[in-house]
Amino acid sequence: MSFRKFSSDTDVIDFARHHSDLFAADEPLQVEEIGDGNINFVYRVSGATNSLIIKQALPYVRIIGEGWPLSQDRVRIEAEALQLEAKHCPDLVPEVYRYDAEQCAIVMEDIGAFENLRIAMVQRIKLPLLAEHLGRFLADTLFYTSDLYLNTYEKKELVKGFINPDLCKISEELFFWDPYCDHERNSINTLIRSDAEQLWQDSALKLEVARLKVKFLNQSEALLHGDLHSGSVFANVSGTKIIDPEFAYVGPAGFDIGSIIGNYLLNIAGQANLSGDKAERSDYQQWLLVGIKTLWHTFEQRFREHMLAETRDPSLQLSEYADWYIAELLADSLGYAGTEVIRRTIGLAHVMDIESIEDAERRADSERLALKLGQILIKERAALDSIDQVIDRVLGELYCR
Amino acid sequence: MSFRKFSSDTDVIDFARHHSDLFAADEPLQVEEIGDGNINFVYRVSGATNSLIIKQALPYVRIIGEGWPLSQDRVRIEAEALQLEAKHCPDLVPEVYRYDAEQCAIVMEDIGAFENLRIAMVQRIKLPLLAEHLGRFLADTLFYTSDLYLNTYEKKELVKGFINPDLCKISEELFFWDPYCDHERNSINTLIRSDAEQLWQDSALKLEVARLKVKFLNQSEALLHGDLHSGSVFANVSGTKIIDPEFAYVGPAGFDIGSIIGNYLLNIAGQANLSGDKAERSDYQQWLLVGIKTLWHTFEQRFREHMLAETRDPSLQLSEYADWYIAELLADSLGYAGTEVIRRTIGLAHVMDIESIEDAERRADSERLALKLGQILIKERAALDSIDQVIDRVLGELYCR
Repeated sequence: MSFRKFSSDTDVIDFARHHSDLFAADEPLQVEEIGDGNINFVYRVSGATNSLIIKQALPYVRIIGEGWPLSQDRVRIEAEALQLEAKHCPDLVPEVYRYDAEQCAIVMEDIGAFENLRIAMVQRIKLPLLAEHLGRFLADTLFYTSDLYLNTYEKKELVKGFINPDLCKISEELFFWDPYCDHERNSINTLIRSDAEQLWQDSALKLEVARLKVKFLNQSEALLHGDLHSGSVFANVSGTKIIDPEFAYVGPAGFDIGSIIGNYLLNIAGQANLSGDKAERSDYQQWLLVGIKTLWHTFEQRFREHMLAETRDPSLQLSEYADWYIAELLADSLGYAGTEVIRRTIGLAHVMDIESIEDAERRADSERLALKLGQILIKERAALDSIDQVIDRVLGELYCR
Repeated sequence: MSFRKFSSDTDVIDFARHHSDLFAADEPLQVEEIGDGNINFVYRVSGATNSLIIKQALPYVRIIGEGWPLSQDRVRIEAEALQLEAKHCPDLVPEVYRYDAEQCAIVMEDIGAFENLRIAMVQRIKLPLLAEHLGRFLADTLFYTSDLYLNTYEKKELVKGFINPDLCKISEELFFWDPYCDHERNSINTLIRSDAEQLWQDSALKLEVARLKVKFLNQSEALLHGDLHSGSVFANVSGTKIIDPEFAYVGPAGFDIGSIIGNYLLNIAGQANLSGDKAERSDYQQWLLVGIKTLWHTFEQRFREHMLAETRDPSLQLSEYADWYIAELLADSLGYAGTEVIRRTIGLAHVMDIESIEDAERRADSERLALKLGQILIKERAALDSIDQVIDRVLGELYCR
């Protein structure tokens, strides 16, 4: 049977029955399309007590249609990335029950008990385990897919298996080019147009962005999630699930770390002007900053433990190398965080954390703050020696504007 | 017909007749095994007026035997690398007439009119076009296989097509590990044993070597020749041929540039104590230093021209980026030159440029000089701002010892 888009609820239900043993044969099932993304179709199939998710990838971008073709290989990549992540941190990703290559579909665990992190952050919900979970996810997925752990053969097979040009190209353009010129894809609040124009003239900034882009293009350091923004994270008070790694490829480790830190910062910028009590918003900003610290410290400590215990290549066991590597990785992460913050402010895809500020003047204030933070991170990343310094620098911008 | 090692002259001659139209049907042919390498078999097949080369790769290392298996995929890689290089600088590589995947054999142009560069350098032969040719070869092969020229799809296909773990692993160990510890594979003149031991204690050096190793492992910058030492270069007064790219893979561009510069320096170190007139040896050292300068300047000028004219990615067109890139590439190249010099002095595979100094004391003097130059290049590479500064630094070591 060749590929066929699911065309009815019955299609989806039949597929679910044939690809899992979660349901009794005569159990009535319901189906609901829940995809809020722009690219794929996502269905929840529910019986009396159990439910599962089916994600199907079409050969084009969902919201655009056949005019923007997109390789269906992305769903294989997503399935394999989820399975690899599950080897190292099974509690932090949805379990893949089945991957059907023919139908370009993944049947997986329903994570309906968790809330989308972006929405949670806009609502200022404090998730006590979130930062530690993210730090652990990053340390485990990045370490175990790098040359610090794999041998040459394993590593090069991994690179080959996750060649993902269609999805990489999207990031290459949206992160590292569009926001730095007057691109038609950009979406810019007219009130900050002159700020954007100023940024387009900044050669020093553009040089640093070019350097980050080249690392993104050709540094095959570790298997990345590749799209680790708040919308790819689901969480509640007791757990965290990281989904949607269809952008996975072997790239610079700092890109994943920076993407999620950038999303913390976008919410911090948003909280300056979101609706609600000022003290409460300010308190949430503090909580987010502590979160960035916890995330990085959890990551660093765990990653260093892995290096000490499990790096087999003797030339990479040198303690001086570990120190150098972690410092370099922090700088990379800050740089990529900066590119995420900037592209979400003046690029194509904005975020609810700022976009939901209704008053255009107030929104512009948060956007200016975001642009400022982004530029600081990109330009000063090599000079910022510790995460504490980074937090101080952000606080300076928040309180001394 | 499955793979079969050529077992007689008749085998080789039959193969030559079937895989080229160079010879008349009734023309008597002669065959000669000329492989001086350690890995493959190389035959010259000659008729009355024409000749060609057949290189066959066995599934193991020639001098070791079946105890050291080696993927025959290396011969596909060599054939494809030669063909790709020929697209950009056809005059600088032997023409591939045929590649036979089944027999793991390449039928190619006989370059018998050219002399092996290592021998030429030991004999202090000045080759007037050599440095320019090497600079052009490097500029063209590296630029046209990098993200500065290729688009994402082309680049990632190239990475995939040249995954070459068997051969990469050899370099990873011989360049970046063995010489920095008391490894059983090392071969060390007893007179410089204490110098080697000192080097093994030098954490600052080992950190820099680890950084260079990691770039070698995971920076997919451009398609490298991968083994660009003097023995892979053939030259005469009017031309140059670069052969044997079986180590080709997509790696850091500075590795190729550094490998050949390292071989110039090895000869410079050798000339301090090789037999012959002192003034003549000193003159040849000067000629080699000018050669390094010419090589780099030719490379840099041509690479910059390519960037200006042919880099399509707008974010990499920034003039500040070109300056930054070239500076970074010089530093990388110097670092890799240093690793080549050191591994050829105290590692497994030495070079005739130094090894042919019969007197052990005098040989030790050249070896100490080589070790010193290697360490300077590795440790000071970021501070050496121009090739002129590098030359000054080498002259200082030559004359102020």
